[in-house]
Amino acid sequence: MKKTKVIISGAGLAGSLLASCMAKQGFEVEVFERRADMRKGSVEGGRSINLSLSNRGIKALQKIDMAMPVLKEAIPMTGRLMHSVNGDLAYQPYGVEGQCINSVSRSGLNLKLIEYADTFPNVKLNFSSKVIHADFDKTSITVENDNGVEETHHADFIVSADGAFSPIRNLMQKYLRFNYSQNFENYGYKELEIQPNEDGSFKLDKNALHIWPRGEFMMIALPNPDGSFTCTLFMPYEGEVSFEKLMSKNDVNTFFNTYFADILPLVENLEEMFFRNPIGSLVTIRCNPWVRGKIALLGDSAHAIVPFYGQGMNAAFEDVAVLDTLIKNKKEETTWEEVLEEYQKERIANANAIADLALQNFIEMRDLVAKPEFLEFKRVENLLCKYFPDKFKSQYELVTFSDLSYSLAQKSGEANSKLINYLIENQLVDIDEKKNEVESAIQQFNIQYTE
Amino acid sequence: MKKTKVIISGAGLAGSLLASCMAKQGFEVEVFERRADMRKGSVEGGRSINLSLSNRGIKALQKIDMAMPVLKEAIPMTGRLMHSVNGDLAYQPYGVEGQCINSVSRSGLNLKLIEYADTFPNVKLNFSSKVIHADFDKTSITVENDNGVEETHHADFIVSADGAFSPIRNLMQKYLRFNYSQNFENYGYKELEIQPNEDGSFKLDKNALHIWPRGEFMMIALPNPDGSFTCTLFMPYEGEVSFEKLMSKNDVNTFFNTYFADILPLVENLEEMFFRNPIGSLVTIRCNPWVRGKIALLGDSAHAIVPFYGQGMNAAFEDVAVLDTLIKNKKEETTWEEVLEEYQKERIANANAIADLALQNFIEMRDLVAKPEFLEFKRVENLLCKYFPDKFKSQYELVTFSDLSYSLAQKSGEANSKLINYLIENQLVDIDEKKNEVESAIQQFNIQYTE
Repeated sequence: MKKTKVIISGAGLAGSLLASCMAKQGFEVEVFERRADMRKGSVEGGRSINLSLSNRGIKALQKIDMAMPVLKEAIPMTGRLMHSVNGDLAYQPYGVEGQCINSVSRSGLNLKLIEYADTFPNVKLNFSSKVIHADFDKTSITVENDNGVEETHHADFIVSADGAFSPIRNLMQKYLRFNYSQNFENYGYKELEIQPNEDGSFKLDKNALHIWPRGEFMMIALPNPDGSFTCTLFMPYEGEVSFEKLMSKNDVNTFFNTYFADILPLVENLEEMFFRNPIGSLVTIRCNPWVRGKIALLGDSAHAIVPFYGQGMNAAFEDVAVLDTLIKNKKEETTWEEVLEEYQKERIANANAIADLALQNFIEMRDLVAKPEFLEFKRVENLLCKYFPDKFKSQYELVTFSDLSYSLAQKSGEANSKLINYLIENQLVDIDEKKNEVESAIQQFNIQYTE
Repeated sequence: MKKTKVIISGAGLAGSLLASCMAKQGFEVEVFERRADMRKGSVEGGRSINLSLSNRGIKALQKIDMAMPVLKEAIPMTGRLMHSVNGDLAYQPYGVEGQCINSVSRSGLNLKLIEYADTFPNVKLNFSSKVIHADFDKTSITVENDNGVEETHHADFIVSADGAFSPIRNLMQKYLRFNYSQNFENYGYKELEIQPNEDGSFKLDKNALHIWPRGEFMMIALPNPDGSFTCTLFMPYEGEVSFEKLMSKNDVNTFFNTYFADILPLVENLEEMFFRNPIGSLVTIRCNPWVRGKIALLGDSAHAIVPFYGQGMNAAFEDVAVLDTLIKNKKEETTWEEVLEEYQKERIANANAIADLALQNFIEMRDLVAKPEFLEFKRVENLLCKYFPDKFKSQYELVTFSDLSYSLAQKSGEANSKLINYLIENQLVDIDEKKNEVESAIQQFNIQYTE
């Protein structure tokens, strides 16, 4: 295949990973990033501080041999640790022995990916370069730099990896037959930091994702390599218990005392931090098509999702991996339009599936994990995973630890629920004692775990 | 109340009606319309030629005493007349004796409303004035005229009545917590004209909305005052029977011969007209909120819907009527924000309901109306309307001939279906013979027909 030029809008996580993938394939790659070069200054705020990296993201990083260096600095989390109001702890493993998700620093990972992309002589990175126009017929974008100078750049194909508020997607939206939705939750989030102990050690169990489920709101905490935790409080903007009700330091102190008493002693200057940090919003963005001419959307620009399945970055990295493979397999006679058409055909349904699953998981995390029926459901699910590892896969496992398409993981998960409810209704929950009956139930439900 | 200034973006149907309503209340009204003054030249193409006006729209026109002048030139349609493939006709009345919907000319009505608005000394109409910016904090819009001159105008409140592709709504979309979706059907539409007979008479029954239901596609025709009919063919863009399959005059001729043989002799130069006229698209737009600061969306700009319930204009006119009444009742101490908040609170759910109903009616019109089970359903529904006019109301009647909120009409319609299916399953369809049993069934279902 004749190697030609690709332009990538955005040097965030997905854009910088894609830049290296394309460079490895021999393309001339030019990247335009709205923000300043993060290697030269401080990181822009307003984004989540850490992210969870799992199988799909790791697989994509392996394409440029970056999985090991990234995992070396990540903190493995083997399960959820729930904190009740009175401080009791309950643990739920994410998978079987050895399966874990990994807390990584967003800015640390982004920095690594930019540094790596910059090692390729065929990659040109441009920062402080704002995309102000795209021409879908000419396959070009117009970029404005810090000095207000505008330049138009052409390429053989262009990828818009410029985030949930993508200017290129905004332009696509003006065309007929572009289906689009942006839906904000009535919830906002606020990040708070638990500093490490004086000796640098962690103040909570470091190998867990901590959850304080409180029904209509919740807090979570993920560990950082420096011994700190980043807590995120998810709460309605308005209503009985909500951000609008917390107007004074006293309100905040009372609120934490009532609902999160166990973390109060762990956070220094909690009240000040609370009012200093902004309230982030939670949006789900879906669109179809993702491609116009030879310009394609990728990552958050195509499918922003809420963070509750820990799959936002992993889904974006899987987009990169799929696109990279399709391009690698492109034949001389195949047009770019055909490659991009195949890319969107494969990805759109999967993006919609993980968007749904992420929304569902919010209810699970903030509410269900504290309910006895749900804990029983999870207990049975874990037993099925343990005793029938080849015949049963949990949805969490399929989404987080497998390569199965998100669409099929969604369908299998729904079928799993029917099976588990059947077992509970028919008193077949002592799985080790009733292996034969359970096995025939599994066969009867005939759940699909492969494409 | 101190009368102040209102700016209206858009002098289409809703905008020009609102201008007169506000002028009658004593406001200083300034209207900015992107298009040229339709009184001075030809009408811009690409819009549907006629529209159906029913109760909600008539009520709104009554506010400025324009209902009678408009209805005088309208053509009443008392029911649907279905044309089968072999030319058989089947008639379904829309309501009881005397109930009808009215075919009106879009441009004729718009012209009337603009002319009327212009009779008020406190209305200033500006044409060829494109809104390029809105400031939601300052309650202002910036408008560019034909010569590229930009001017910023302030008002006490501003209404965006500038259509499905509203520039003001596009600006709102950039703010957080603005929920928005645009969804295009995979169907396009094409308009064709049946000229009157040489003596000016109609070639089809003039007092009906004609439908050629063909399952996955359909044609409809509405009468015009000049003796012509405007036919609209609704068909998928792609697929087995679709616009993309009709590439030559021969294709078109074969297609009409196969599916719409009865209209072929009625249309002159059908094939030429087919290729001359554009393919229109069908979009549903929903958003929430409709108000930012003292700028509010109204009509298509807030809720574009598909045309299959004949309610697009009626819903927009109802927005105008509701807003007009709220403003009329505004007290000195009430802020504009509170009035607009009440307006959106009342209208958003209703707009979503009629959007859903319009989508459902497409399936009914193109497919169900040709099926025996549906005809039986409709027959039973008509008998219920006839024998229990005080106890049963059809959904069509509630939407088209009543003031009941669209939301409640939607709910009542769903409950109606359950009742009718119950009557069919229990062989209670000979309603005149089993009045007592049917009446007790109606009581049992206890369907709500009032707010």
